[in-house]
Amino acid sequence: MGPKTPVKVALVGSGNWGTAISLIVGKNATKYVDDFYPEVRMWVYEELVNGIKLTEIINIQHENVKYLPGRRIPPNVVAIPDLVTACKDSDILIFVIPHQFVENVCNQLKGHLKEGCLVVSLIKGFMVQKKKGGIRLVTEEIRDLLNVDTAVLMGANLAQEVANEDFCEATIGCKNEGNRWSILQKLFDTDNFKVTLTEDASTVELCGGLKNIVACAAGFADGLGYGNNTKSAIIRLGLMEITVFVELFYHGSNIRTFFESCGVADLIATCSAGRNRKICEAFVKTGKSIKQLEQEMLNGQSAQGPMTAEEIYLMLKKHNMVTRYLFLQMTVSFPLFSAVHQICQQQISPDCLIRSLRECDPLY
Amino acid sequence: MGPKTPVKVALVGSGNWGTAISLIVGKNATKYVDDFYPEVRMWVYEELVNGIKLTEIINIQHENVKYLPGRRIPPNVVAIPDLVTACKDSDILIFVIPHQFVENVCNQLKGHLKEGCLVVSLIKGFMVQKKKGGIRLVTEEIRDLLNVDTAVLMGANLAQEVANEDFCEATIGCKNEGNRWSILQKLFDTDNFKVTLTEDASTVELCGGLKNIVACAAGFADGLGYGNNTKSAIIRLGLMEITVFVELFYHGSNIRTFFESCGVADLIATCSAGRNRKICEAFVKTGKSIKQLEQEMLNGQSAQGPMTAEEIYLMLKKHNMVTRYLFLQMTVSFPLFSAVHQICQQQISPDCLIRSLRECDPLY
Repeated sequence: MGPKTPVKVALVGSGNWGTAISLIVGKNATKYVDDFYPEVRMWVYEELVNGIKLTEIINIQHENVKYLPGRRIPPNVVAIPDLVTACKDSDILIFVIPHQFVENVCNQLKGHLKEGCLVVSLIKGFMVQKKKGGIRLVTEEIRDLLNVDTAVLMGANLAQEVANEDFCEATIGCKNEGNRWSILQKLFDTDNFKVTLTEDASTVELCGGLKNIVACAAGFADGLGYGNNTKSAIIRLGLMEITVFVELFYHGSNIRTFFESCGVADLIATCSAGRNRKICEAFVKTGKSIKQLEQEMLNGQSAQGPMTAEEIYLMLKKHNMVTRYLFLQMTVSFPLFSAVHQICQQQISPDCLIRSLRECDPLY
Repeated sequence: MGPKTPVKVALVGSGNWGTAISLIVGKNATKYVDDFYPEVRMWVYEELVNGIKLTEIINIQHENVKYLPGRRIPPNVVAIPDLVTACKDSDILIFVIPHQFVENVCNQLKGHLKEGCLVVSLIKGFMVQKKKGGIRLVTEEIRDLLNVDTAVLMGANLAQEVANEDFCEATIGCKNEGNRWSILQKLFDTDNFKVTLTEDASTVELCGGLKNIVACAAGFADGLGYGNNTKSAIIRLGLMEITVFVELFYHGSNIRTFFESCGVADLIATCSAGRNRKICEAFVKTGKSIKQLEQEMLNGQSAQGPMTAEEIYLMLKKHNMVTRYLFLQMTVSFPLFSAVHQICQQQISPDCLIRSLRECDPLY
């Protein structure tokens, strides 16, 4: 056998999480010299910071002063302002952008990607099906628009702590792609970022999006002054609703996937820290609307949780599942998911959350 | 059918958790008048508080001023200093005492209990098998000593928050006793203390004991300054070791039991609050021994976690499972459990915890 052709990697996105993951990917690309092409291109949406282009700052100072200040980016990570230039020769593309930008990015990339390339999505959230209603996985959208294979990486990965190199875990979901597992593990796994692999990719992705609804419930409970018992119950009941939702709409999930980092661990981390929890705590304490708090606390960016709660609520409503619904001789309902949406919309008061928890059925 | 004979209930124990549960049980005994005898006897280990007997204070003031000050005990809960008097006519006995007292309490009760009575254990921890080494479930010990049926109640139930009537959940495990489920639910379930029932009683009990080892690891991580990612990973990896331990030594567990309040939720609550976490955080920060910290922080009482870690470590050692071990074509090992014991014993330094987490295998 001749020498392997090294794999070219590109990062699509350079926000807080994108930059944090570039530290890992950049190092691994130079660690495994036989496997990877040393240069990792990072597409950076060009903007000026104190009059200087962000790509220039990154390429000269090796620091993303805007989205991850104080952390040295490996010098083999090269910031590139043009999307197609950053991506065109790459074998693995790591998508780490807000889900609202996916369609636009894919449309720009269409026809310019290398054949047989793989997109690994780190995007948490769902696409909305405009005509049919309901949600659609980000990877489904990417596959449809780009005709590529996809994988996902999700887990208990608050970006700042990953950048600190605190020990954590992540889950990679990649369907029927056993032959790609070794390269994905080499690309992402480090001593302090331990990845595990599963074929149950849809469940991994769904966990990553749905957890934000549960984080809102945790934030309401914090705002209402509840303690650890209640919060643990919310996390558990939220996890149960996630498992039922996944089984109902994407059946074929493996229950063990919910025990992976993408499941229970990410849920715990997101319900302890994370901005959905925080904004929902403030919602209860200040009485301000989610929209107003997004302006004040997130520079006008949308929090994922309330948005996802709305998408899921509309989907449940369409299927007549907001109230009890008979499924395989089980009555299912989603009182926690539904209450989060209704509270965010100020249709019911936050203290109705507890009433909804009482309605959660013992599902098994 | 004639009228039912009401069920008599007794509480064995009146500490912080025992008193908190007496609020629930006392109220339910008067709520379901057809099912329960209104008087609930509570065995109180007699002691003097400011020169007055604790049983007298409880029966006159309806408050356990020593172990749960500020909470009104329902007046139908009657404190009794004599163990046999408190228990002899009871159909359901709720054991809520430190596990070190179980043998002595059972020996006193032997021959004095009503035939067909049921003991519900709320005791977290294990009995040590003196001759054979290893652990033994508290309920096994109770069954052997008293020849009674047993059930367990475990969950994310920090006593103070239960007493505050904050919403929480609990899991009741009762083997092959479907006909007792209705009465157990009536006895314990309230709007803010939601119980679910399972036949997988051993798993429920094992989760309640083993979680304290994981809480120690969470405390070490807090002491070392790690954040939410690491703690979530510890909770997840700890849960995985619990599932493997249960399957290995008490096979036949149902994986869904780990999703119940006794499993994941109790683990989250205990790793967030709870004294094992606290004492292990202090262990790292102060450099004092566990023994010394027990003196300073727990009035000389033993923390469960380090004790359980030792018992489990000796058991694993006996079975050659401290290092890797082949089980059903899987390599199993318990790096987290083992590290907690070795750190508590000052055999390895706390920062070795992270090294041990890296050794945790992807088990599935």
